Amino acid sequence: MPARLEEFEDVFNKLAEDVVQECALPCRTLEWFRKSLYHNTVGGKCNRGLSVVDTVSILLDRPLTSTEFFETATLGWMVELFQAFMLVTDDIMDASKTRRGKPCWYLVKDVGMIAINDAVMIESCIYILLKKHFRQHLAYLSMMELFHEVSYKTEVGQSCDLISAPPDVNIETFTWEQYFFIVIHKTAYYTFDLPIALALMYTQRATAHNLQVVRDLSLVMGEYFQVQDDFLDAYADPNVLGKIGMDIIDKKCSWLVLQAMDRCTPDQMTILKENYGVNDPKCEATVKALYRQIGLEKAFSEYEETKVEQLERMIGEIDPAEGLRKEVFAAYLRKIYKRSK
Amino acid sequence: MPARLEEFEDVFNKLAEDVVQECALPCRTLEWFRKSLYHNTVGGKCNRGLSVVDTVSILLDRPLTSTEFFETATLGWMVELFQAFMLVTDDIMDASKTRRGKPCWYLVKDVGMIAINDAVMIESCIYILLKKHFRQHLAYLSMMELFHEVSYKTEVGQSCDLISAPPDVNIETFTWEQYFFIVIHKTAYYTFDLPIALALMYTQRATAHNLQVVRDLSLVMGEYFQVQDDFLDAYADPNVLGKIGMDIIDKKCSWLVLQAMDRCTPDQMTILKENYGVNDPKCEATVKALYRQIGLEKAFSEYEETKVEQLERMIGEIDPAEGLRKEVFAAYLRKIYKRSK
Repeated sequence: MPARLEEFEDVFNKLAEDVVQECALPCRTLEWFRKSLYHNTVGGKCNRGLSVVDTVSILLDRPLTSTEFFETATLGWMVELFQAFMLVTDDIMDASKTRRGKPCWYLVKDVGMIAINDAVMIESCIYILLKKHFRQHLAYLSMMELFHEVSYKTEVGQSCDLISAPPDVNIETFTWEQYFFIVIHKTAYYTFDLPIALALMYTQRATAHNLQVVRDLSLVMGEYFQVQDDFLDAYADPNVLGKIGMDIIDKKCSWLVLQAMDRCTPDQMTILKENYGVNDPKCEATVKALYRQIGLEKAFSEYEETKVEQLERMIGEIDPAEGLRKEVFAAYLRKIYKRSK
Repeated sequence: MPARLEEFEDVFNKLAEDVVQECALPCRTLEWFRKSLYHNTVGGKCNRGLSVVDTVSILLDRPLTSTEFFETATLGWMVELFQAFMLVTDDIMDASKTRRGKPCWYLVKDVGMIAINDAVMIESCIYILLKKHFRQHLAYLSMMELFHEVSYKTEVGQSCDLISAPPDVNIETFTWEQYFFIVIHKTAYYTFDLPIALALMYTQRATAHNLQVVRDLSLVMGEYFQVQDDFLDAYADPNVLGKIGMDIIDKKCSWLVLQAMDRCTPDQMTILKENYGVNDPKCEATVKALYRQIGLEKAFSEYEETKVEQLERMIGEIDPAEGLRKEVFAAYLRKIYKRSK
């Protein structure tokens, strides 16, 4: 584990004790809650959480003091707690089997549907920690409202995703409009806007102007990030990606299938409809062959270049007068441009 | 429907439109969300929600203006939304079949586990409405923190309840300590403390002293209320109660079974263990006969008189200097004393 991640995880140990000790819980409830917290929150790459720490350091243009590290890591863990809350319920709704190399929480012995209550307890931890550590901060209220807003946007994206993809859905009902709504709501807000806006608030630079610039850039970056995800699902080496892409078999409303429908002939459309969303490696291979035939790799490259140009232009236009720095987004972009996992 | 409840529900129609229009939702998501909101939030007696309205009127000692009615009803609906959020997930975790005479939301066609996301969207509505209608109120932050705190307490109570009652539980593991922890956390905070504290905040009377008095009284009243619930489950006429008591068959950690275990002989204990939690009307009748034999009706009467004395003493000691009025709790007590449903 990189030293930074280890240091970040150390902060979690302290925070987890804060929250489990909050309520004078009976012994078994306390043990259960601690187990749920660790199982669901720790063990990922913590990109979102660490980005609060990194962004504050970039904004201040210097290494953080140990107090600043602790406080920004605390905000980072709130983002991770939010994600954990969403993933626990998401896994139940998607009937997923594993998450981060472990069984999904609801599949752990004796857990089952109690996982739903565990998920909302994890969500509650955000506000317990916010109150405990930031009650005196000038941005306390703004941070709280931001978590509420981003939670609602993410849940709305989740809702749109869930109800537009019943198992018997016809892929011809997929639309670009729906795709971009889901991508932006379900991912972009909490992945990019939330950590960066928290960093602005922490450093007292959360002017209306800066928040708007961050939001605009976050949504474009979030879209690009998710389109990459969809592309990698079919095109990446599973050993590098760390998972086996399932979008074709799971009949996901992916950027690739939308592109394919835009580009294919009526005959190709028939093939696509017959083979997309079928749990059979042959059908999956047929869809992938069709993707190659239509030239989706090139389509993705073109998309990527266009988006990166747009992002670079937007970054270039950032006015540092109110304390936002171009480097915040430049650093993000370097991390995700042409990523292979 | 009583005129007051009708007037209260009228406010909901306005609030529901506020929240569903908040996010420029795609058409199907908007329709789904509206359906979920109405199915899960409306149709109950709204005692908790209405009590915000009533308590403010008692505190001000006069009828409310139409603005005050709208605002207090809005706070009341937030309490109802909180309850709806808890009930939707509770029904999934308990595998319940019906709620308020309708099928549980997760059993409605096409809903299933999507109900989990619908539940957290309902929770988010609380904070959307709070921001929309109370952002300028001096108690805005306090109200938000109160909802966070009460949510966490309720979830903790839920957690303790869920993990201490697996289907194969031995009733001898039930303890009074656990019982009171669950009762207070799972019910008392959101049923009594939340609406009354909101009324204090709304009227700018939420001094530390008043909040503490309200909390102390709420927890005692909440305990009494839940013990009544447990008693009525076995002793009330189902036609009056409006539901068929299931605690014995469901092996619930009820006040009655704890009392029975405290009072019964070793032979009676054997009978209790053999018949409690068995899905068979004969076993249930055996348990009920045992309850009568041990004299639980009298035990409940004695408990009730003791609690009512305690509550009356506490109400008598309320100091109105900071704007809290004895009548707030006297009105509650009149409503629940010797209730038959």
